[in-house]
Amino acid sequence: MTTRTLVDNCIGTPLCDIPEPVVAHAKKGVLNWLGVAIGASRHSSVDMALELMSELDVSGQVSIFGRREKADVLWASLINGMSSHVFDYDDTHLETIHHPSSPVAPVVFALGEWLDLAPADLLRAYILGCEAELRISKAVYPSHYHQGWHITSTVGVFGAAIAAGILLNLGAERMLCALGLAGTQSGGLREMFGTMTKPFHPGKAAQNGLLAALLAQKGFTSSTKVLEAENGFAQVLCPEHDLEEVNREWGSRWELLNNSFKPYACGVVLHPCIDACIALGEHADPDYVSELEIVVNPYVLELTGKVNPTTGLEGKFSVYHAAAVAFGEGDAGEKQFSDNKVVDSSLNRLREKVRIVPEESFREDEALAKLTRTDGSEFTKKIEHATGSVKNPMSVQALTKKFKKLTANIIDENNADVVVSLVYRMGSLHDIKELLLCCEGSQSR
Amino acid sequence: MTTRTLVDNCIGTPLCDIPEPVVAHAKKGVLNWLGVAIGASRHSSVDMALELMSELDVSGQVSIFGRREKADVLWASLINGMSSHVFDYDDTHLETIHHPSSPVAPVVFALGEWLDLAPADLLRAYILGCEAELRISKAVYPSHYHQGWHITSTVGVFGAAIAAGILLNLGAERMLCALGLAGTQSGGLREMFGTMTKPFHPGKAAQNGLLAALLAQKGFTSSTKVLEAENGFAQVLCPEHDLEEVNREWGSRWELLNNSFKPYACGVVLHPCIDACIALGEHADPDYVSELEIVVNPYVLELTGKVNPTTGLEGKFSVYHAAAVAFGEGDAGEKQFSDNKVVDSSLNRLREKVRIVPEESFREDEALAKLTRTDGSEFTKKIEHATGSVKNPMSVQALTKKFKKLTANIIDENNADVVVSLVYRMGSLHDIKELLLCCEGSQSR
Repeated sequence: MTTRTLVDNCIGTPLCDIPEPVVAHAKKGVLNWLGVAIGASRHSSVDMALELMSELDVSGQVSIFGRREKADVLWASLINGMSSHVFDYDDTHLETIHHPSSPVAPVVFALGEWLDLAPADLLRAYILGCEAELRISKAVYPSHYHQGWHITSTVGVFGAAIAAGILLNLGAERMLCALGLAGTQSGGLREMFGTMTKPFHPGKAAQNGLLAALLAQKGFTSSTKVLEAENGFAQVLCPEHDLEEVNREWGSRWELLNNSFKPYACGVVLHPCIDACIALGEHADPDYVSELEIVVNPYVLELTGKVNPTTGLEGKFSVYHAAAVAFGEGDAGEKQFSDNKVVDSSLNRLREKVRIVPEESFREDEALAKLTRTDGSEFTKKIEHATGSVKNPMSVQALTKKFKKLTANIIDENNADVVVSLVYRMGSLHDIKELLLCCEGSQSR
Repeated sequence: MTTRTLVDNCIGTPLCDIPEPVVAHAKKGVLNWLGVAIGASRHSSVDMALELMSELDVSGQVSIFGRREKADVLWASLINGMSSHVFDYDDTHLETIHHPSSPVAPVVFALGEWLDLAPADLLRAYILGCEAELRISKAVYPSHYHQGWHITSTVGVFGAAIAAGILLNLGAERMLCALGLAGTQSGGLREMFGTMTKPFHPGKAAQNGLLAALLAQKGFTSSTKVLEAENGFAQVLCPEHDLEEVNREWGSRWELLNNSFKPYACGVVLHPCIDACIALGEHADPDYVSELEIVVNPYVLELTGKVNPTTGLEGKFSVYHAAAVAFGEGDAGEKQFSDNKVVDSSLNRLREKVRIVPEESFREDEALAKLTRTDGSEFTKKIEHATGSVKNPMSVQALTKKFKKLTANIIDENNADVVVSLVYRMGSLHDIKELLLCCEGSQSR
């Protein structure tokens, strides 16, 4: 009954029953998602998909964020979903390593634009789609992830189908079939990490989930118990699972509140260290640094111990590079993980002065950094909970700054301000036309 | 190295290196596939997909078999692949329960038409796509199937990508990425059996495999060792596997030769019994039957023991109904498994006279039927190997008859004759234009 109960729960939850803090957090999620989607919209993988789309003569029904090209709803879901995961900078449900927005938000915006739906309805669909997928992820994590599945897409496809089904007003029976069709398209192998195929995953999950709902709307039949059936999703893809998690305390507990946003364009494991180094960077120019010692959870070295990264992508897996740019430039955005930065000689000199001390007693969101200057003076900075962690979430201001940094040179700065303001008023907007227009790429390509 | 060796093997096998019996068998496969695809082209699930396609304003680049509507290559692959599996009447690799043509042939025809490729090249791509997927299936069967995966789609996606990659002339590196992209989209749960989502699987595999190859052609990056990698296809989806099977004796052993065609529109387990009853039906009108006793492998009752089916689909799971129609009507095609037939009173009277005797010593393709007439006289018929089994394959004539039965009332009879003749001359045709024209639906819908 897991699948049916989930469907009943989703259909039976109007926006007015969703607590205000959840809605407010969801708006942050939407803004963060728009930022990362627009930010990577000029990536070569997006260019490739658009080139193929043009050869297939796909009709221009809805927007591709950050571009001027249009696509049909299925292609727009694929491309916007992919784009939003390219930088690995989208939102993260830390407990399950699931990025909830990338498979759900593209579907919400594509259908919203296509069918000219009310922004409040989009917000509801986004919230319920994310909430559903996060609960499914909790039910199957960690065995599902350890089996080798990229949980963001394998589970994300359910979130996409739920969001689409809500917007298409599918009744319970067709929504169940939509979930059947979605679950049977579940896929995404962790083997693809480090290639363009990783961000392709949530895009495909968005597209597959939307296709599932659109076919179910036509009367396409499918299993009505895909989550719990003997040959269903949990049994086949998740060696261990607890399906009770899916509907437990529905309406009184919101998993979406545990969704977090990254202030920095790299794995969260580096974030406490970056926080500390940004703070210490105010005390010395790089040339006056004698040593930068950082105490962190041992997991940091395990995942990001690369001493001499040679590409920007490798830089994201080097705590030494991350500490150096944070100290030297006061930030760790996409720019700080470019190919240029990892070979910058001044930063490399600083990198050599970084010493990492693994300490079992430190939590993953904790760090202690000590700067020793060439004059012998010392400064320390303790980070209890890294920025962007559940206990220290990014503020509206910080998210606005992130959004503007990501979208600079892609959309006009004035438009960026308008988008921020519109997203925070999304529940009361009349339509999303202005929002979409402001997200259009500033230069035709 | 499994993936790379497979790619090298496929790319390095020109049509002239493929033995003539394999090519001849492949042509049968193509004809059989065209028949089942055209035969189900008016099915409601196809109508639904076409309706959605029209709302998405998909461009009309290539043919949908049996219809007048056109689609882009991705949609055509989905719809033709789906249509060809609707009747469960397509080809079967009996050892792995894999239906090789349904994910591969749609891609071959879609690309062939789009890019105006030589029919000999299509034949080669079809053969290599099928050969590759059957070898992968052998490597992962039975554990993969028993885990709950619909092997025709989960493995079929590789065949589709190989066929597309061959036709697009991808070099080895891009072909490897195509397989990575294909494998990460692998999906299809056996839970969906009995719903429209089952035939959706091979259609989606065809579409996903083609998308994989088209993106790889653009330079999209992916894993280059999807089959054998730690978080790759075999490790994640196949509890037990022997990847040596994939490339073993490449070029000297052809798994495609073990592909079989169904003479009857139901599970192969019923076929020996149907063969026997058709033969005995010549000895008596149904009203003069006292008893029809049939000795079969016990598996028959286990899978098709339904005594009183009430729908055509249920009829496919009733050895009693199958025996009755075979005896009474001399056939067991789609018509004999219609909703009308299972409630036909004359057939039902005959059905009650059928007695099944399970016998452990009988192989699955073996049956012994004894007719006792009301006048007391007896006739027996022993089937050693059912028609359509590997040891008793369907002849060209039988396949032609099947094709014409399936396509009657959908394409003109003259056109059907032309298609048969063109398929058997496929290797030397100049193009496939006439073939495609003859497969077009005779009435606009």
